[in-house]
Amino acid sequence: MATKFISERNIKFLIYEVFDVESLAEYDYYREHNRKMFDMVLKAAIKLGKDLLFPIFVEMDRNPPELVNGEVKVHSSVEKIMKEFGEGGWITSRVPFDQDGEQLPHLVADVCEFIFSAANYSANAYPGLTFGASHLIESFGSKELYDAYVPKMRAGQWQGTMALTEPEAGSSLSDITTAAEPTNQDFYRIKGQKIFISAGDHDGAENVVHLMLAKIAGAPAGVKGISLFVVPKKRVDSDGNLVPNDVAASGVYHKLGYRGCPIVQLSLGDKNDCRGWLVGEPHKGLRYMFQMMNEARIGVGMGAAAMATAAYYASLDYAKTRRQGRNVSQKDPNLPPIPIIEHADVKRMLLFQRATIEGSLSLLMQCSKYMDYQKVLKGEEKERYRLLLEILTPVAKSYPSEMGILSISQGLQCLGGSGYCDDYPLEQYYRDCRIHPIHEGTTGIQGMDLLGRKVIMQNGQPFLLYISEVQAAIGTAREFKGLAGFADDLDSALTKLQEVTQKLITIAQKQGPEVFLADATLYLDFFGIVTIAWQWLLQGIAVQRALKNGAKKSDSNFYQGKMFTLRYFFSYELPKILGLAKRLMAGDGLTIAMQTEHFND
Amino acid sequence: MATKFISERNIKFLIYEVFDVESLAEYDYYREHNRKMFDMVLKAAIKLGKDLLFPIFVEMDRNPPELVNGEVKVHSSVEKIMKEFGEGGWITSRVPFDQDGEQLPHLVADVCEFIFSAANYSANAYPGLTFGASHLIESFGSKELYDAYVPKMRAGQWQGTMALTEPEAGSSLSDITTAAEPTNQDFYRIKGQKIFISAGDHDGAENVVHLMLAKIAGAPAGVKGISLFVVPKKRVDSDGNLVPNDVAASGVYHKLGYRGCPIVQLSLGDKNDCRGWLVGEPHKGLRYMFQMMNEARIGVGMGAAAMATAAYYASLDYAKTRRQGRNVSQKDPNLPPIPIIEHADVKRMLLFQRATIEGSLSLLMQCSKYMDYQKVLKGEEKERYRLLLEILTPVAKSYPSEMGILSISQGLQCLGGSGYCDDYPLEQYYRDCRIHPIHEGTTGIQGMDLLGRKVIMQNGQPFLLYISEVQAAIGTAREFKGLAGFADDLDSALTKLQEVTQKLITIAQKQGPEVFLADATLYLDFFGIVTIAWQWLLQGIAVQRALKNGAKKSDSNFYQGKMFTLRYFFSYELPKILGLAKRLMAGDGLTIAMQTEHFND
Repeated sequence: MATKFISERNIKFLIYEVFDVESLAEYDYYREHNRKMFDMVLKAAIKLGKDLLFPIFVEMDRNPPELVNGEVKVHSSVEKIMKEFGEGGWITSRVPFDQDGEQLPHLVADVCEFIFSAANYSANAYPGLTFGASHLIESFGSKELYDAYVPKMRAGQWQGTMALTEPEAGSSLSDITTAAEPTNQDFYRIKGQKIFISAGDHDGAENVVHLMLAKIAGAPAGVKGISLFVVPKKRVDSDGNLVPNDVAASGVYHKLGYRGCPIVQLSLGDKNDCRGWLVGEPHKGLRYMFQMMNEARIGVGMGAAAMATAAYYASLDYAKTRRQGRNVSQKDPNLPPIPIIEHADVKRMLLFQRATIEGSLSLLMQCSKYMDYQKVLKGEEKERYRLLLEILTPVAKSYPSEMGILSISQGLQCLGGSGYCDDYPLEQYYRDCRIHPIHEGTTGIQGMDLLGRKVIMQNGQPFLLYISEVQAAIGTAREFKGLAGFADDLDSALTKLQEVTQKLITIAQKQGPEVFLADATLYLDFFGIVTIAWQWLLQGIAVQRALKNGAKKSDSNFYQGKMFTLRYFFSYELPKILGLAKRLMAGDGLTIAMQTEHFND
Repeated sequence: MATKFISERNIKFLIYEVFDVESLAEYDYYREHNRKMFDMVLKAAIKLGKDLLFPIFVEMDRNPPELVNGEVKVHSSVEKIMKEFGEGGWITSRVPFDQDGEQLPHLVADVCEFIFSAANYSANAYPGLTFGASHLIESFGSKELYDAYVPKMRAGQWQGTMALTEPEAGSSLSDITTAAEPTNQDFYRIKGQKIFISAGDHDGAENVVHLMLAKIAGAPAGVKGISLFVVPKKRVDSDGNLVPNDVAASGVYHKLGYRGCPIVQLSLGDKNDCRGWLVGEPHKGLRYMFQMMNEARIGVGMGAAAMATAAYYASLDYAKTRRQGRNVSQKDPNLPPIPIIEHADVKRMLLFQRATIEGSLSLLMQCSKYMDYQKVLKGEEKERYRLLLEILTPVAKSYPSEMGILSISQGLQCLGGSGYCDDYPLEQYYRDCRIHPIHEGTTGIQGMDLLGRKVIMQNGQPFLLYISEVQAAIGTAREFKGLAGFADDLDSALTKLQEVTQKLITIAQKQGPEVFLADATLYLDFFGIVTIAWQWLLQGIAVQRALKNGAKKSDSNFYQGKMFTLRYFFSYELPKILGLAKRLMAGDGLTIAMQTEHFND
């Protein structure tokens, strides 16, 4: 079996050559860091992925979680993973020095997530969720809550979760019914049901800390009545012992993939003894939760890109070693068969994978850089990057998720019949990756978020900022002869995106929100393709700069490969916007006119 | 769980209203048949699907085949299925009366296959392969072979297979090494290995009859040295008893899906006692096998469309009953949630499924009609339909297979998190359908077949016939006001297809076969989309005719639904050719210029 699951060269290309993480050291907050240290961190992350996570990738799938006597049993390595991540500082990589964190730039911390998810997505979900949940308490919780939970979570002793979905409230959170009844003590009494909770219960951690949405009795209807609570599986009693908090794991789902991590159904307060502690103010829970949700959305995009990357290297390895057939211009059956990578159609399938996943990772790194800028800048400049993140988040979640499925499917196809069998890991990646367009907001929800919220918010400010960022890249690219054509292509695509957006806004004004948003998912596709083209142009600029400055000979294949992949994206993927634009300009409300009864028979 | 897996209304619409199967009774060969009888056959097929096949669809997946003591154990129902299919005349539905068959038109027999595959694809593989293998013996074997095998196979007592692939020869059959050594008796001694053989061994039939490709010692190299043999698992000894024929089931694959049917690895002649009987003449085996392969390719397309159809109805059922959220123009959280089918994006996902699968089924029925014409016509007319089938076969195999994956993925997406769990059948369909672009020639192979063989064969005759068929539909559609716009759109698309084809032929002449065929898979996509648009136009004509002739009120929703789906295809799917055309016209040989070493790092 192939053992390569990421490209260290590509990671370094992105963080150093494209996004220049070193330049962040100019800012006070990151001044302690330098390339030597980043390299060490990367090396350690790759080692952890290689030694601890990747070897159990298949094993965790074959031995999925089970509910035994009210507790979810997971693979025995989970406890070790949580501990090593806690002790190794991987849960605190983004936490400031003054809280004993590593205060790493997002560009570095996030690419470590990428490495871990490529090695074993399910395994990385445990510490990943724990970081997000602890960050939520840190950001909005009281000092008491922080002290009671955050250190244990950061140490990898306690698992964190996000507990939003209920049987009747998934995409529509306004309908949650989990109830929080005030008491005369510092806690609320929680009653309700949560479903689809990742890592929602397991025996690999001493405790599970749910960051849970619930409604306080008498709260306003809808999303304005949602509050955020910390609801632990076990609470600390007056003697300092951990005792059950009436949070029952009532079921564990049997899933297509992502089997290394349990998705759990929870029953809260069956014995009327489930305590929850309010985070921040009442009724502001969804706003707080959006911090974790946005992090998780980008995390899903990262996980999707990571998984597709691992699948790509598995298919590349096969394509280089498997021999079959001859070149189409060569008909002599006595010649030996050639490695299938030499067939144009196989190269096309590999290029499709590479173009979409390296483009996705670049976009995710772009988001990381914006997060870093948000951290170090102030005022208007900080706001600029906040808004850019707002508009890019649905794209960074969905493009890698949707294209990850197609990419892995092409990877599987490279292996033919072997891809369909479990002797090779492709079939597992194909199962695992199908979760990404679903969890943390489906692709449909992301489309609505992009077009119905982000594009039009603040008078279109984020959209204009986005356009200016892409235009800046186009401007720079024009300075390089080898990129001028691509710069022109992206320029046209960007103009088309603006035309389509303008047309849709006119539709919104004339025909109302339903027709406006009917094809929001297609708009998201369109936006995604243009965005990845932008990211490829940025990569092209980095390559051309390196070549101009006299790149090392050993880098020659890498840079040439990058330029071929850039060409592939512009020639095979970018033209897909033509068809999308045609449909998006129609504005005929076709899917609205069709009624349920027309689906009869 | 939803129980609908096909639409009887749609099947009748296609065979009676679009393809007018009744008109075949004008020809001598089919003169005994009439609509009443067809209706009875359909009713029986649906009942068999509903009562026997569909109820064990999940069960067969959860209890996959196992190799026990050298024999593959399959679900206990397989024996019953084979028997019922044999006794019910389903294996002989296309066999002439004079061989005790039902002599049904392909349009009817093939749509029964569709029904069975929609109910349970794996289950239908057993009788389906048995028919194909018996047909091969019937077509090219001696009377002795016919008498020895065909009756038992048609009775469902013996399983038939096609045994082509070997460890080192999958897509490239010219490299097979299974050897056939002549003896001084009527048989050859067979030695070799075969892999990926569907239903290649199991305990649900008394015997397994392999139609196997092998090379006779001293044969020419490559495909011109391939011969076809009947190699039974058990042979009849001089006393008339079935005795082992040295065909060992050496492995059964653990697959992503399609688990109701074993894919087997066979070892032949380990004891030097495996006998094979030559079919037809030596060295003509691949030519013979192409009969079964072409049937199987269309069968795969049919299976893919069928599976996606069943998945569509499962997702439709969910979308109609699951309530979530409110209309986007309606913000009051106190209103009750609406069925998700009322959200435009869900309708879009359902329409995508319906447009691609009903379009696929229509194309497959078109192929069936051409087969029927081949049967009843003579001379030039017969040749016309043979050539049309030649050019449509790769499309009829690949479009349903590739779009089936996307369609089922959208079906799964309609269910959100539930789609990812095995409480609903979507995750199984998603696993099962991934086999279709692989078996019976990968999509890449189909692309090469279409562009590199079918489009250019006989001076482009099949391509010109195809164009004339589509133009005829465009001409008829123009007679209906409601179709004129779609006729124009298809006309433009057809012109574009001709331009692209011409450009590619110029590339072939100037740049040689490698550049010519580099994007053959994209050409196949392009051709597929245009072809399905043609099929939707044909369906539109049938709808308009029915409406003109005063359709029943009870059909109103059905016909309106058809027109919406037609509009969907033309508005969302057909524009995809714009991007494909742009790439196909490039002719820059990008994937050829990129070398293996550019994939390093």
